[in-house]
Amino acid sequence: MTEYLPSYVEGAWWTPSAGSPSTEVRDASTGELVTRVSTTGLDLAAALVHARTVGQASLAALTFHQRAVLLKQFALALTARKDELYALSARTGATAADSWVDIDGGIGVLFSYSGKGRRELPNGTVRIDGPVEPLSKDGSFLGRHVHTTLPGVTVQINAFNFPVWGALEKFAPAFLAGMPTLIKPATPTGYLAEAMVRILIESGLVPEGTLQLVSGSVPDLFDHLLLGDIVGFTGSASTAESLRRSAAVQTGGVRFTAETDSINASVLGTDATVDTPEFDAYVRQLVTEMTTKAGQKCTAIRRVIVPEGSADAVIDAVRTRLAERTVLGDPRAEGVTMGPLASLTQRDEVLRQVAALQDAGGRIVIGTTATPEVRRADGTTGQISEGAFVAPILLRFDDAEADAVHGVEAFGPVASMLTYATIAEAAGLVARGGGSLVTSIATHDPAQAVALATRIAPFNGRLLVLDRDDARSSTGHGSPLPNLVHGGPGRAGGGEELGGIRAVLHHMQRTAVQGSPEMLTALTGVWHTGAAVRSDGRHPFRRSLAELRVGDQVASGSRTVTLDDIETFARFTGDTFYAHMDEAAAAANPFFPGRVAHGYLLVSWAAGLFVDPEPGPVLANYGLEDLRFVTPVSPGDEIRVELTAKQITPRETDDYGEVRWDAVIRNQRDETVATYDVLTLVSKRPQGETAPV
Amino acid sequence: MTEYLPSYVEGAWWTPSAGSPSTEVRDASTGELVTRVSTTGLDLAAALVHARTVGQASLAALTFHQRAVLLKQFALALTARKDELYALSARTGATAADSWVDIDGGIGVLFSYSGKGRRELPNGTVRIDGPVEPLSKDGSFLGRHVHTTLPGVTVQINAFNFPVWGALEKFAPAFLAGMPTLIKPATPTGYLAEAMVRILIESGLVPEGTLQLVSGSVPDLFDHLLLGDIVGFTGSASTAESLRRSAAVQTGGVRFTAETDSINASVLGTDATVDTPEFDAYVRQLVTEMTTKAGQKCTAIRRVIVPEGSADAVIDAVRTRLAERTVLGDPRAEGVTMGPLASLTQRDEVLRQVAALQDAGGRIVIGTTATPEVRRADGTTGQISEGAFVAPILLRFDDAEADAVHGVEAFGPVASMLTYATIAEAAGLVARGGGSLVTSIATHDPAQAVALATRIAPFNGRLLVLDRDDARSSTGHGSPLPNLVHGGPGRAGGGEELGGIRAVLHHMQRTAVQGSPEMLTALTGVWHTGAAVRSDGRHPFRRSLAELRVGDQVASGSRTVTLDDIETFARFTGDTFYAHMDEAAAAANPFFPGRVAHGYLLVSWAAGLFVDPEPGPVLANYGLEDLRFVTPVSPGDEIRVELTAKQITPRETDDYGEVRWDAVIRNQRDETVATYDVLTLVSKRPQGETAPV
Repeated sequence: MTEYLPSYVEGAWWTPSAGSPSTEVRDASTGELVTRVSTTGLDLAAALVHARTVGQASLAALTFHQRAVLLKQFALALTARKDELYALSARTGATAADSWVDIDGGIGVLFSYSGKGRRELPNGTVRIDGPVEPLSKDGSFLGRHVHTTLPGVTVQINAFNFPVWGALEKFAPAFLAGMPTLIKPATPTGYLAEAMVRILIESGLVPEGTLQLVSGSVPDLFDHLLLGDIVGFTGSASTAESLRRSAAVQTGGVRFTAETDSINASVLGTDATVDTPEFDAYVRQLVTEMTTKAGQKCTAIRRVIVPEGSADAVIDAVRTRLAERTVLGDPRAEGVTMGPLASLTQRDEVLRQVAALQDAGGRIVIGTTATPEVRRADGTTGQISEGAFVAPILLRFDDAEADAVHGVEAFGPVASMLTYATIAEAAGLVARGGGSLVTSIATHDPAQAVALATRIAPFNGRLLVLDRDDARSSTGHGSPLPNLVHGGPGRAGGGEELGGIRAVLHHMQRTAVQGSPEMLTALTGVWHTGAAVRSDGRHPFRRSLAELRVGDQVASGSRTVTLDDIETFARFTGDTFYAHMDEAAAAANPFFPGRVAHGYLLVSWAAGLFVDPEPGPVLANYGLEDLRFVTPVSPGDEIRVELTAKQITPRETDDYGEVRWDAVIRNQRDETVATYDVLTLVSKRPQGETAPV
Repeated sequence: MTEYLPSYVEGAWWTPSAGSPSTEVRDASTGELVTRVSTTGLDLAAALVHARTVGQASLAALTFHQRAVLLKQFALALTARKDELYALSARTGATAADSWVDIDGGIGVLFSYSGKGRRELPNGTVRIDGPVEPLSKDGSFLGRHVHTTLPGVTVQINAFNFPVWGALEKFAPAFLAGMPTLIKPATPTGYLAEAMVRILIESGLVPEGTLQLVSGSVPDLFDHLLLGDIVGFTGSASTAESLRRSAAVQTGGVRFTAETDSINASVLGTDATVDTPEFDAYVRQLVTEMTTKAGQKCTAIRRVIVPEGSADAVIDAVRTRLAERTVLGDPRAEGVTMGPLASLTQRDEVLRQVAALQDAGGRIVIGTTATPEVRRADGTTGQISEGAFVAPILLRFDDAEADAVHGVEAFGPVASMLTYATIAEAAGLVARGGGSLVTSIATHDPAQAVALATRIAPFNGRLLVLDRDDARSSTGHGSPLPNLVHGGPGRAGGGEELGGIRAVLHHMQRTAVQGSPEMLTALTGVWHTGAAVRSDGRHPFRRSLAELRVGDQVASGSRTVTLDDIETFARFTGDTFYAHMDEAAAAANPFFPGRVAHGYLLVSWAAGLFVDPEPGPVLANYGLEDLRFVTPVSPGDEIRVELTAKQITPRETDDYGEVRWDAVIRNQRDETVATYDVLTLVSKRPQGETAPV
């Protein structure tokens, strides 16, 4: 490793001149010097301009699906070299299990967004939000909401605890949205983020300007930010506050998302008494949360809220499990299950906060603040004066309303126990955290879960209900998942990350667009009713994806529905619902004039009317959406159908794609009988040949 | 009218003690004293507590649909007495047309949210956001996002220009979300808001604590706000900035939404030359925007961006139309089409900003800053020294890049013209506004619309494309609509209002919930696959809404599909697609093993398998959603179906409701063949009798 940790800006690796003032970074277990960081002489403004120009242009040239394919390739590139990352990760104090959360967890976010991006976004650069809003009676003026990419750069300011996951969970949605990223890792573990970025850059896959790294401090960052930029911050509430007060955020329109450590709670239900599966699951989860990453997780359990009668049993069970399971030491030593904190600074800070909790009435009932005996890398046991080790600590508060327990965070293997008498009281205690990332509830009583959850949901970004049914499959209190929102109100920062495509949208502007059907079709790439159609005698089912255009239409001839047809269909399907079979009963129904045709008959016939049966590019009808029966069809009525190509989504990695067709069935009076979307797979090639799936 | 304008707090009307210091409010045209406002002695903190306790409880007792029904009743109550509002509105300087925007526009928002609330929200108190997220392979651990009501109060801080609409457009979504509102109108026109609130309160329809009004200033408001409260601010960017800097917002987790006046633009396309319909539409719209509400609209056009060659023609056309159409005067005088500004203070401020624009290079090409001759209430013409009249003014800037034209707002009948040479240049000028509520584009060229819109969408909350197709039906540049987002990035405040249900969600917390299917069913009221079912031999179609529960299920017997069935269905429907008819061609298709049954056959048979045909509470199948064909069905395969009540939505004002059924078709190998939701109408009464619709 070089003396200075490099940055990657403007398409090149950069290190400060020899002798520049720098910060030393040390191994968490041994105190050995790992690297130095410094940004003296780095041109941050130029890096931001590079992102906004070169990076934006790189991404604007790619569709959502093309970006999604790259995310998967990034994930594969990191997977191929993840041993390098694990080796470095151990130096930060992470055990192999901790590193798995950070490294494989981060890679998993890339895979997840790659899949979601292709399944849930169009293969273009503009996303439609919500349905058409008709704005005039004649259909000539419509509204629609679209999401377009913000024109700036996303700057990540990350916490030290998850240098890989923390960077990738912000990078994936930004990249998918079309925004370039600049990563600013936390100094104590920035060397691991640097290694991750290096693997990506060396893969040659990263489009120019879309990923930059600044190793070191960026004191003047906010002076250089513009409308259209985003800052994604993870860290302490106090730092978030000072950054949020910058002019760029307050008046410049720069989006600022904060995800801050919060005083998360875990509530044991009154039904979850000792010997129930919920009690065991609660204790297991608590011990996991206290020891994983040595408790350095913004989602970790800080408040252990249990019924008065269960407190001693929980303490006993936690003490037993900790004793059985926890081996504190250098993560490179065999058998170690819990490592040190990230740095001596962190250790001292945690011990200071434990003292504050004690001053406020907390009694330590498990663990100690004394320097612990630990397992050294060589297998011997003893104290390591240069290692940032803290033993797991559980405090107990007799006064559940003490301010400190709801406000002071010891960012380490530290939790505090409170007791409650009623569910309302438990909910009130959870809310006193002032907004949390997550609260978990152990109960097998749905009524209790509902009573608690409805009270505390507005104070939480995530809730987990733990019981015998999900205890084995649960991903746990402390695990943010790519498909669920991560973030919470108030003290938790007020931001939202992850949650699938929701996070992509945080990097885009939602705009209401008003115009004619023709203009909305041009702006969105999706055909809108009333826009031009092509109906030139060539059936659209004969057009491959290369030839098909939105607006390609087939308008069928008419077919008359007879009573005999209805009865034939009823016999064939077994659907003898009275509205089809019994004139008097049907007429008594408030919605029907008398016997009517089955809705399924109508859509089946419509398919017969619009289909072009010979082999061709249309491969399959894989589904149907938004079917509404609008006007009943009586015997003697005629129906016809118009089928219009509405949205075309070629796949990047297959030789076919999805085509969504707008279907409208009308009767002889031109009334709309039914509307729906038909979903098909269509080949990119004329004859429909495609490789078997 | 009383000497002091009353407030309505804690369930009672309140006025300050006689002699309290106060602000005088005067008639905009005549300068007559209308009322005085003062909050000396008002207990604001108690009003907020009243909302958070009594108001929250009132709304928590109502479902979304019940709240929506009340919104409609509020709208009807206001409609019945709107003449009173129109009479007062004239005193604010509003013409009848201006008042229509404010009063009928505001009532329209109530109607719109009443309809949207019942169509688009469940009839409960929790809203589900997005699909189920499977979190374990065995289906025992799921994730889902829910929206729950924020526990606080929504405080509106409104602008003076739309005292009725401005209050109702914030009130409607808050009320629907379950949040009580406290309205703080702007002083110059607060008496109109007071009259509106009085009508609502006197209607007796408003649940206790859900609507309060503070007439006058609230200097210590932010000291009393808590996590779970929202401030919805409309007004100047500078005031928004100072409010946003409060501790309540910066660290207290109070949500702050700002919608500020912005320097909106209207762009004339290069194709929209004189004599095109687009040119005419552009000029008409510009004159409307300059004169409606005397230009006191945060959405008004401030920057008139035209091709260099069209500038003179636009100026001439605007001058001609203004001369033909605009009669400035007291709104109570016959024939007046444009009224005064809201107050002399506003007039002086506008003239100051016009001077600033002139100092920065703007030349007045239409209008004057001199005190205009106007039509008095008695029909005579002359100057009114106590009236806040300003004539429409168009400035022209030779330097399109002058900072002032993109940053200085004269909040009156004032716009500035800039010229451009290329579309990229026009887009750059729009963006220089630093974020706008709305930009309109007049062009009939889709390519030009796309080129402009994709560049400027990220800088705008709304875009309007004006052309010959929508010129007559367009609602216009300056009109926010209940179903479209109102708000914009940067200078426009960064907030979002309206946009249909989107605005409701801004009053709720989104929380990811993890748990077993049983727990998610309990928490959401919607059945989740894997949760308990009731399959007791009684067909669920025999249960009225009063008896039906989510989880009620019918599991059908099996039925074998034969080749003959497929051919019969093909002949009957006309759907002879080769995958059903031609073994060799079907086998060559990448998705099929050989000839397969039609998807429509499967869903038709499934209906035959699950239906209970006799008259009963199930009235109609009105649609189907999310149909996916998962596994093809070959001749010889057997299918069966499970139909489970998933969501039950009784209607408040009908004797039936919607029931959504989860349908799963499986084959003899237990593979999933198809999944979909069946949508039905079900009576509240056992025999299905219901009043005709």
